[in-house]
Amino acid sequence: MGAIVTVGSLAFDSIQTPAGKVDQALGGSANYFSISASNFAPTKVVGVVGQDFPKDHIEYLKSRGIDTSGVQWAEGKTFHWQGEYKDDMNQAITHNTELNVFEHFDPKLPESYLGAEYLFLGNIDPELQIHVLEQIRSPKIIALDSMNFWITGAREKLLQALPKIDILIINDGEARLLGDDKNLIAAIEKIAQMGPKALVIKQGEYGSFIMMEGNFFATPALPLRKLVDPTGAGDTFAGGVIGYMAKNNAGLDFPTMKKALLYGTVMSSYTVQDFSINRLKEVTENDIATRYDELMKMITVE
Amino acid sequence: MGAIVTVGSLAFDSIQTPAGKVDQALGGSANYFSISASNFAPTKVVGVVGQDFPKDHIEYLKSRGIDTSGVQWAEGKTFHWQGEYKDDMNQAITHNTELNVFEHFDPKLPESYLGAEYLFLGNIDPELQIHVLEQIRSPKIIALDSMNFWITGAREKLLQALPKIDILIINDGEARLLGDDKNLIAAIEKIAQMGPKALVIKQGEYGSFIMMEGNFFATPALPLRKLVDPTGAGDTFAGGVIGYMAKNNAGLDFPTMKKALLYGTVMSSYTVQDFSINRLKEVTENDIATRYDELMKMITVE
Repeated sequence: MGAIVTVGSLAFDSIQTPAGKVDQALGGSANYFSISASNFAPTKVVGVVGQDFPKDHIEYLKSRGIDTSGVQWAEGKTFHWQGEYKDDMNQAITHNTELNVFEHFDPKLPESYLGAEYLFLGNIDPELQIHVLEQIRSPKIIALDSMNFWITGAREKLLQALPKIDILIINDGEARLLGDDKNLIAAIEKIAQMGPKALVIKQGEYGSFIMMEGNFFATPALPLRKLVDPTGAGDTFAGGVIGYMAKNNAGLDFPTMKKALLYGTVMSSYTVQDFSINRLKEVTENDIATRYDELMKMITVE
Repeated sequence: MGAIVTVGSLAFDSIQTPAGKVDQALGGSANYFSISASNFAPTKVVGVVGQDFPKDHIEYLKSRGIDTSGVQWAEGKTFHWQGEYKDDMNQAITHNTELNVFEHFDPKLPESYLGAEYLFLGNIDPELQIHVLEQIRSPKIIALDSMNFWITGAREKLLQALPKIDILIINDGEARLLGDDKNLIAAIEKIAQMGPKALVIKQGEYGSFIMMEGNFFATPALPLRKLVDPTGAGDTFAGGVIGYMAKNNAGLDFPTMKKALLYGTVMSSYTVQDFSINRLKEVTENDIATRYDELMKMITVE
């Protein structure tokens, strides 16, 4: 089993969806990713929080075996995202982003993180992603998430990062933007030329797929009667993917990555069923096994 | 092997897509469906055309073994649809619909059609669908397609038809409208209460899935580098689904229906790669086998 390092946000989210609303709920990519991944392998978080961040949440992460020695406590307030989803749960509408302590975030990996075999660079400034990537010694797998804001606003830096990574994990809209083609397949073929060895494309309620060396593997999402809040689904998904790979000490091994995609799908199905990390926190080994079986049944021809 | 009867439109389509445009090209649900299905099982068409319809196209259908004795030649012009797709190829924009000879269409099944085991009721007025359904003797499987226009405009008639059919084949937007729920899974659970024994939900480039007795099976679409025109993809898909079931003399048998869904996916992948029936006409047995293998590889975990 390998260890995972992730860098990303620990945040407060104020969110409205057709199912309700929450104010200042716990969120952030590193939060969702690490809770998800910790179901599979030891996970170490790099991030920054403000003085208003609840200490007992850090204690909660520790209680899951998550290493938080790379979390910095800075002067000021924690990153705060305010957003909304209307009927289309695949489309987040941002009302306000308060970077706060994230504005001067300088991620530093503690000595105990440097030997980790898996690195997940959560959706932050590509410059910081590169900075983290340069600190870690010789990871087996480096995965990176990004978003439209960086794809358009920090494209050069992102293009510098891509040849250094193994797996790019983005959604279909981001892939169209990055690959600059309205046809998704044409877009990801262009992205493959930018350096990453494998692409994992998330399509929300429609599922996800991998492309690696021209080979495809696709899975649907689980059929859910109720979606509450999709926030964090992508990071939870990545936590399942990288978590399963780490658990199996996998390199860029297509058969293992297929199963990793299924575990990512299973994990994210829990996050969307409640606000914040509420449902994700309660996921048991048995829950994961049950939904994995359900998903396998749904994609098995005979 | 069973025989298939289909009722639907034989039409001219004038279409603009980002890939180009065609005027008065051959189209219509019965056209796409029967050419697709005839790769699998004998197919008999019920429809109506005007005096302007090319006789050599009817000869072409006959050359594929398609029975056209149920095609009526009426006074007047053939049904003509004018539409457009912008960047979102899942969304047709109708500019004009000239019903022409379709306005007074009274479908009549020739005696030779009445013993067919499979009936596909293409997307026409539910009143006509019921009229056809009442003529055929004792089919093993009745499948029905519909669209927003009938779901909102002829809802009562459609609800009368649903308990009489086995398989409803519609797209996700139509399902949300018919089931009156923004959550697709909740919507189709309501539709299942309306009578059809199995639901096949098409999701365009995202693939499709079956729900039958609470069981799900889903498949992605094939990854295509170029989409030319999605018109007819749904009918082509249905032709593959019902064609494969007829070839195997299948009832509502879930394992066979899974494979049928894959064959529907394969067939529709050809239709979208050119305008009209141009690419579909050229599909060989070898083409079908090749893309079926490609699709299987794409969904097989180990």
